[in-house]
Amino acid sequence: MNKNVVGIIGLGRIGKLHLDNIINNKSVQVKYVYDAFSKDINEYIKNYSGVTVAKEYDEILNDKEVNVIFICTPTTTHSEIIIKAAQANKNIFCEKPISFSEEETNAAYEAVKKANVKFQIGFNRRFDKNFIDAKKAILENKIGQLHILNITSRDPEPPSLDYVKQSGGIFMDMAIHDFDMMRFISDSEVEEVYVNGAALVNPAIAEVDDIDTAIISLKFANKAIGSIDNSRQAVYGYDQRLEAFGNMGKLNVKNNLQENICLANAESVISSKPQWFFLERYKEAYFLETKLFFEAITNDTETSPNFLDGIKAQKIAKAAKQSLNSGKPEKVETIS
Amino acid sequence: MNKNVVGIIGLGRIGKLHLDNIINNKSVQVKYVYDAFSKDINEYIKNYSGVTVAKEYDEILNDKEVNVIFICTPTTTHSEIIIKAAQANKNIFCEKPISFSEEETNAAYEAVKKANVKFQIGFNRRFDKNFIDAKKAILENKIGQLHILNITSRDPEPPSLDYVKQSGGIFMDMAIHDFDMMRFISDSEVEEVYVNGAALVNPAIAEVDDIDTAIISLKFANKAIGSIDNSRQAVYGYDQRLEAFGNMGKLNVKNNLQENICLANAESVISSKPQWFFLERYKEAYFLETKLFFEAITNDTETSPNFLDGIKAQKIAKAAKQSLNSGKPEKVETIS
Amino acid sequence: MNKNVVGIIGLGRIGKLHLDNIINNKSVQVKYVYDAFSKDINEYIKNYSGVTVAKEYDEILNDKEVNVIFICTPTTTHSEIIIKAAQANKNIFCEKPISFSEEETNAAYEAVKKANVKFQIGFNRRFDKNFIDAKKAILENKIGQLHILNITSRDPEPPSLDYVKQSGGIFMDMAIHDFDMMRFISDSEVEEVYVNGAALVNPAIAEVDDIDTAIISLKFANKAIGSIDNSRQAVYGYDQRLEAFGNMGKLNVKNNLQENICLANAESVISSKPQWFFLERYKEAYFLETKLFFEAITNDTETSPNFLDGIKAQKIAKAAKQSLNSGKPEKVETIS
Amino acid sequence: MNKNVVGIIGLGRIGKLHLDNIINNKSVQVKYVYDAFSKDINEYIKNYSGVTVAKEYDEILNDKEVNVIFICTPTTTHSEIIIKAAQANKNIFCEKPISFSEEETNAAYEAVKKANVKFQIGFNRRFDKNFIDAKKAILENKIGQLHILNITSRDPEPPSLDYVKQSGGIFMDMAIHDFDMMRFISDSEVEEVYVNGAALVNPAIAEVDDIDTAIISLKFANKAIGSIDNSRQAVYGYDQRLEAFGNMGKLNVKNNLQENICLANAESVISSKPQWFFLERYKEAYFLETKLFFEAITNDTETSPNFLDGIKAQKIAKAAKQSLNSGKPEKVETIS
Repeated sequence: MNKNVVGIIGLGRIGKLHLDNIINNKSVQVKYVYDAFSKDINEYIKNYSGVTVAKEYDEILNDKEVNVIFICTPTTTHSEIIIKAAQANKNIFCEKPISFSEEETNAAYEAVKKANVKFQIGFNRRFDKNFIDAKKAILENKIGQLHILNITSRDPEPPSLDYVKQSGGIFMDMAIHDFDMMRFISDSEVEEVYVNGAALVNPAIAEVDDIDTAIISLKFANKAIGSIDNSRQAVYGYDQRLEAFGNMGKLNVKNNLQENICLANAESVISSKPQWFFLERYKEAYFLETKLFFEAITNDTETSPNFLDGIKAQKIAKAAKQSLNSGKPEKVETIS
Repeated sequence: MNKNVVGIIGLGRIGKLHLDNIINNKSVQVKYVYDAFSKDINEYIKNYSGVTVAKEYDEILNDKEVNVIFICTPTTTHSEIIIKAAQANKNIFCEKPISFSEEETNAAYEAVKKANVKFQIGFNRRFDKNFIDAKKAILENKIGQLHILNITSRDPEPPSLDYVKQSGGIFMDMAIHDFDMMRFISDSEVEEVYVNGAALVNPAIAEVDDIDTAIISLKFANKAIGSIDNSRQAVYGYDQRLEAFGNMGKLNVKNNLQENICLANAESVISSKPQWFFLERYKEAYFLETKLFFEAITNDTETSPNFLDGIKAQKIAKAAKQSLNSGKPEKVETIS
Repeated sequence: MNKNVVGIIGLGRIGKLHLDNIINNKSVQVKYVYDAFSKDINEYIKNYSGVTVAKEYDEILNDKEVNVIFICTPTTTHSEIIIKAAQANKNIFCEKPISFSEEETNAAYEAVKKANVKFQIGFNRRFDKNFIDAKKAILENKIGQLHILNITSRDPEPPSLDYVKQSGGIFMDMAIHDFDMMRFISDSEVEEVYVNGAALVNPAIAEVDDIDTAIISLKFANKAIGSIDNSRQAVYGYDQRLEAFGNMGKLNVKNNLQENICLANAESVISSKPQWFFLERYKEAYFLETKLFFEAITNDTETSPNFLDGIKAQKIAKAAKQSLNSGKPEKVETIS
Repeated sequence: MNKNVVGIIGLGRIGKLHLDNIINNKSVQVKYVYDAFSKDINEYIKNYSGVTVAKEYDEILNDKEVNVIFICTPTTTHSEIIIKAAQANKNIFCEKPISFSEEETNAAYEAVKKANVKFQIGFNRRFDKNFIDAKKAILENKIGQLHILNITSRDPEPPSLDYVKQSGGIFMDMAIHDFDMMRFISDSEVEEVYVNGAALVNPAIAEVDDIDTAIISLKFANKAIGSIDNSRQAVYGYDQRLEAFGNMGKLNVKNNLQENICLANAESVISSKPQWFFLERYKEAYFLETKLFFEAITNDTETSPNFLDGIKAQKIAKAAKQSLNSGKPEKVETIS
């Protein structure tokens, strides 16, 4: 078996996460890492034997031995790197969203299609055991025909205002995962969204034309309806739940807890809190997504979620932003 | 202590429920019952010693000894009976909604105000231990400032199409309880609603210009946002939950279960189902609402929920119907 | 239908509870109450129209109209009253235990058998919905063959030392309910017990030759094994759980909670506590046990639990006391 | 930093588990593996670069570079290997139990003491997050003074009869983990045990002088009492729970579930099952126990659990076996 030879472009929090998840994958050799901003990347990478720190990411793209690129840079750089990587005939794993610009997204999509390389978008939640089993149960008709799909998705603490400013907004940055989950679980397309939202956690977020709290009401092509409940600050921890309701039953995905203990005393009954944030909650999902990505390359099968999944989630995010601005429900652009 | 002397007008399911709840109340004497449709009311009432079956409800209103009227008739008759009862100087307990007609509602309200009698509307859920404790916790600032308020409210089985036709529609018939709970729990007014709904349980319901499945998105005067999730058919039982989310925490009201047992076997872990419907779920709430109503009369204190609470919930229901028709969010009329 | 005419002997906490539960039973007329110690019984009974306060309990036994006696007096008086009531041909509902003395128990049993009157012992837990459903599931073979049966039974707060002194000890006073539940749920007889116990809550209890904390290990005739976990003081509330484990699964009865709400904040996740004590936890069971007792009289069917059930639980309590003293497992006397 | 150079003796299921857990530990070099029975060990080890398959385990002990030995062989060989390894001045990680023979156990203990090498016994459950947090809460006085400590410990399926025959019996093979947990959680010594047990899962187990179902009642030096509930077959999965009850509250460790989803339909409410067996349930605990073992070596600190912990659990197992035979409670030998 030929090993997949990997270069990771962008070694922030998520790049490092992927590095750790793939470094011991026996089908993988991580040959390069690159980061435009990190000063201590050389120090950091010392613990990873055999990994070279590239000076420019072109160095990686020019190495014929490399067949896989991980793109973990800021979103504004994604499309350029995707296009160059596709032209260099590399398979691509790219963090979400693909781009804030539709033109750039489309250009990147064309480049990937033309090069006919594998492309996987980093919707990690699709690889969570709970959500996988939930989807499986629904496909097995355990709840019958889907009527209502609700997602609760709240972060434990808001990002910095600086982060918010360059995040693309709550829909593109945070809710985009939920838009993808809506499509993934329902097996249907979102046709219309209405946003009821405000900056309740931090009023300063409103000043940068964003919100931190939202109820997003959705209509699906299969006639089901749904809602997403977002907050940037759930003080009790990362709140990641789902309820799918149908004519034959209801399916709930609950939070994973930090531990399974319970204390009862004279005042109250105290249970374990949810896991704190995405690194804990989706630890195994992050591992699985890259494992399956490499299997798709090795076996030459379809990656999932793919480029179109990335685009479709972005179209919903766009409609959500329009709805927030117009105060009315907005149609989601269709794409084929 | 003078006993409250009561006449019950309308002895269907809910009239009988109130009869049973107040018959052993030591401050109450049920002197009359009346029902325009029941053929076996004489047979039925035999088990209740000292209760007379009136031939017309005027007979009850004309009895000076009677100081309290329960109105448990079809909604279309409420306003007329309220007006007559108020003119006869009777205190009134009236089932929800007050009326399908705003003019009739207003006329009844004027009559009650003029007569200065006690009036309580049958929003039974306000007397449920779980919801009372939830409101108390919120008032005690346990979750801080309210950001999101979500109610799940699903009936176990749809009513007959005949019932639906004369029900006033899902908002006036079913969601009106949830509109009241939104006001009760949030301690704020609903300013705008957007309805995302369809007839998914039974398409025939669409033919009578109604729906059976809805996600209702709401905006509150206090800047919080909320949603109501309604279905006419939850096959697993009456689903009555609430989640209040604030900047300091989250509070959940869960379903009451039929029993507290759990079976684990080789295939699965099986727990008790929710209580089947409102008669089980709100049994104690129904008892408490009339108990407190009589205490308000005896002590000459304010009833709660009162006539205005009834009107305000109806205004939200009206806006919801408008939103369903327009496909857009609609403002709720204010009232003082 | 002839009404059951009842006299209640002993109007302490439990006598009053039964009075309230049967006063509105349409097949019952409570004609007398009697209490040897209560000074304010005349005042108390004013709210119960038609009930006479007897000067001596013989007055009740001598009234030919009375066909049912409730014995709610201190245990030391039970056997005498049972014998007199049986001789007067009254049906008997008697609180547990029947007697602290085996001779007196046997004499009472002979009197009841000779008079051929109905006799029901106050093992209220047999009428709890959770335990009834648990037994039903086991009889329906949901867990297969029973291997292990564990009961957790802890009171929220210890009784006074004065109460403990005249209680007959923890086994006869408190664990006797658990011994009965062991027989009820297992459908088998307890053959041997071993007690591991101490006065850990209050050392003064040891000075009156009693304990307040115990793990009682049991062997059943059907080869299953079991344990009872008792404490006089569970600060979080009345702890009444059961786990039946078999070769095909496991069944748990959990505590009923005070309400079904849950608060999550930055520190913890806080749920509702168990119901505080037996009056709340077994409220409906107490109601049902007397309802079924009167039905057994009216329909001339067998009462359950009956006199033998009372005796058998006492035999287990006796063996438990022997085991505590000997430090070894002890056989339970058989009885037919 | 000098790496720990490791040889693993015995490469069955548990040896392979440790190999996987330590192979990526940056402070560790696995230099050798050895297994007396495995035919395909050379094939298996190909995936682990740099690991040599030793022909005899002496080869490992004779390599001066090796400073750590993992003993994962059948129990009957433990003491001999411990003694040789200690004489060769190797630090030792040994699976439980140390030995079925007290003489051998003592000889091994003397050798380890004399050589003054590190020794850790494989009581993996001490490294489970739930139990660690439970112990922490108890030490922080969250439940006050411990009164009762109950452990439920049931395997999902019984081992083969062949395994049972050479297992040392249920107490030495299975309950020994629970005996250690009793000591770990209570921070006290077990002074007396009484066993109530039988072969209910498989009668053939009785023919090899063993049982498969047991309730073990225990007395602690600190006056608390406790019980262990064991079965070789819980069809719903690995059942690993704990309840610590004190004068200020109660602490429960619940099972970890396979996933956190729940399905409600017309028949029932179905939740996720417990994790299937120890490899899933204690996956992270196994990882942590060896991580901390190497840290103890590197930092020259005490290992925990140590040799004495192994001996003390074996003494309880011995008393349990005596109790099963005698039918009476038996004292546990003290050791200092």
